[in-house]
Parts: sequence; structure tokens; C-alpha cells
Amino acid sequence: MSSQCDCVFCKIVAGEIPSACVYQDESAYAFMDIGPVADGHVLLIPKAHYDTIDQMPASDAAAVLAALPKLVTAVKQATGCEGVNVLQNNGHVAGQVVSHVHFHIIPRVTGDRFAFNWPAETYPDGVLNELADKITRAITD
Amino acid sequence: MSSQCDCVFCKIVAGEIPSACVYQDESAYAFMDIGPVADGHVLLIPKAHYDTIDQMPASDAAAVLAALPKLVTAVKQATGCEGVNVLQNNGHVAGQVVSHVHFHIIPRVTGDRFAFNWPAETYPDGVLNELADKITRAITD
Repeated sequence: MSSQCDCVFCKIVAGEIPSACVYQDESAYAFMDIGPVADGHVLLIPKAHYDTIDQMPASDAAAVLAALPKLVTAVKQATGCEGVNVLQNNGHVAGQVVSHVHFHIIPRVTGDRFAFNWPAETYPDGVLNELADKITRAITD
Repeated sequence: MSSQCDCVFCKIVAGEIPSACVYQDESAYAFMDIGPVADGHVLLIPKAHYDTIDQMPASDAAAVLAALPKLVTAVKQATGCEGVNVLQNNGHVAGQVVSHVHFHIIPRVTGDRFAFNWPAETYPDGVLNELADKITRAITD
């Protein structure tokens, strides 16, 4: 398959840019991140091009993400890590660098480098239900 | 359906603990996080109980995650955010608090509260391929 666009991940899927592939099937391609935030950091991507997850048809999301459990299992087994973060970033503000949907599989051990904050708050009265209604309507519309 | 275990998310799915549900189908349940790190923070979970993603059968991962694109679309539309992080934590070391698989859908805007670092490094010679081989073998075994 030759890449149909100028995207670096499409070129990886097409074999035009080399990668250390660990798994592939009809819909999914998984390979080693060459700039890992932890040893064993793997990327799972759709073979088809979508900039962000909201552009994916449900059927392709299902087909690609069916591979997620076995990839996480394999990364845990191969690295001996204590836990794993799965992270998928949409948009520059969210930390997305390559505009082709990708799921980071990040092995975690105590005292490692990767970290995120968790600035949890609570909603003022009424705001949670208002947002829930808006989101529900946006799904059913 | 009554909950089959003592898990708070199983009790939410069973309706034994209230939640602001925004979407559900046969396999998936999505609801507002009551301790949001951003306004419109939603959790997508399997109705069935799994502690971590590696425990999920591929078929259930596919069924649940088929809902991810439409949920991200709806959260973007409802909140007007600029981007979205999808984050799923496995294990205490990875920040998992509730031991029932859950995907955080976190709306992002410039200057917001949620953040992670990105301590990317490069592998010493040979290490990337060695890890790739180990992971590949762990998948095919």
C-alpha cells in the first residue's frame, strides 16, 4: 500500500519510512515510539488516516482498538512494568504533535519520568447536569 | 441489572449509585466525572467489570471503544473546547484510582488546568529493536 498523503504515520504504515512494527492487522498498526517517554513506549494507530479521534467511524475505532488489550498485555510482559497509561491526544492544545490518530501505550514504574497532574474540582450547583444535558443532546442530535 | 461486585463503577452501571449518564449501549456506559479536571470531563467505561485494559477481551474493547469517536465529538461540541485528551490509567503507579477500566475524556483549552510532561528520550543503540522483539514475541506467544 502506498501512502495517500504527506503524513509521517501514513508513510510508516506504507513502509516508506521505517519503523519497528510490533503488531499489525487489517485496520491497526503498532510500532515503537522512537522518542519514548518510557522504555517500551508503543504507538497504536489506525492504518487509515484521521487527524483526530472524532473523525473516525465507529467501526474503525472498534477494529483498531480491539488490539489495545493484547498490546498492553504484551508491553507489560515484555517490560515488566507496574502499570500502563494509554493516552490519545487530539489537537495542539492537548499535546498532539502528529496529526494522525495515535494511542500512546506508556509503561509505568515507580519513580519514572512521565507524569501528569490531576487538578480535580467540583462543579458549582447545576453545572454538571447542564453540561450532561448538552453532551447528551450532542450525541443524540 | 444489579451489580455483581463491590466496585463503585459497577454500582453506577447498575443504577445503585446515581450518575449523570450521557450515553449507554449494550456494552458501554458514559457519565460525567464528578471530580472533573476540566468542565465536561466524561468517563467511558465497559458495563462489564475489568480491573485493567489488559483483562478485556478484544471483542468487548471493540464494542466499548466504538463509542469513543461520538463521545469526543459530543464533548467538543457541547463544551466548545479546542482539543481533547483521552486517558486510560492501569495500575496505581499510572494514576488509576477506581479499579474498573475507564477512559477519561478531558476537554482542553489554552491555559487550562490539566497538564502532563513529555520527557522523551532516545534509546541507546540496539535497545529499541530488542524491546520491539520482546513485545512482538509477547503478542504472538
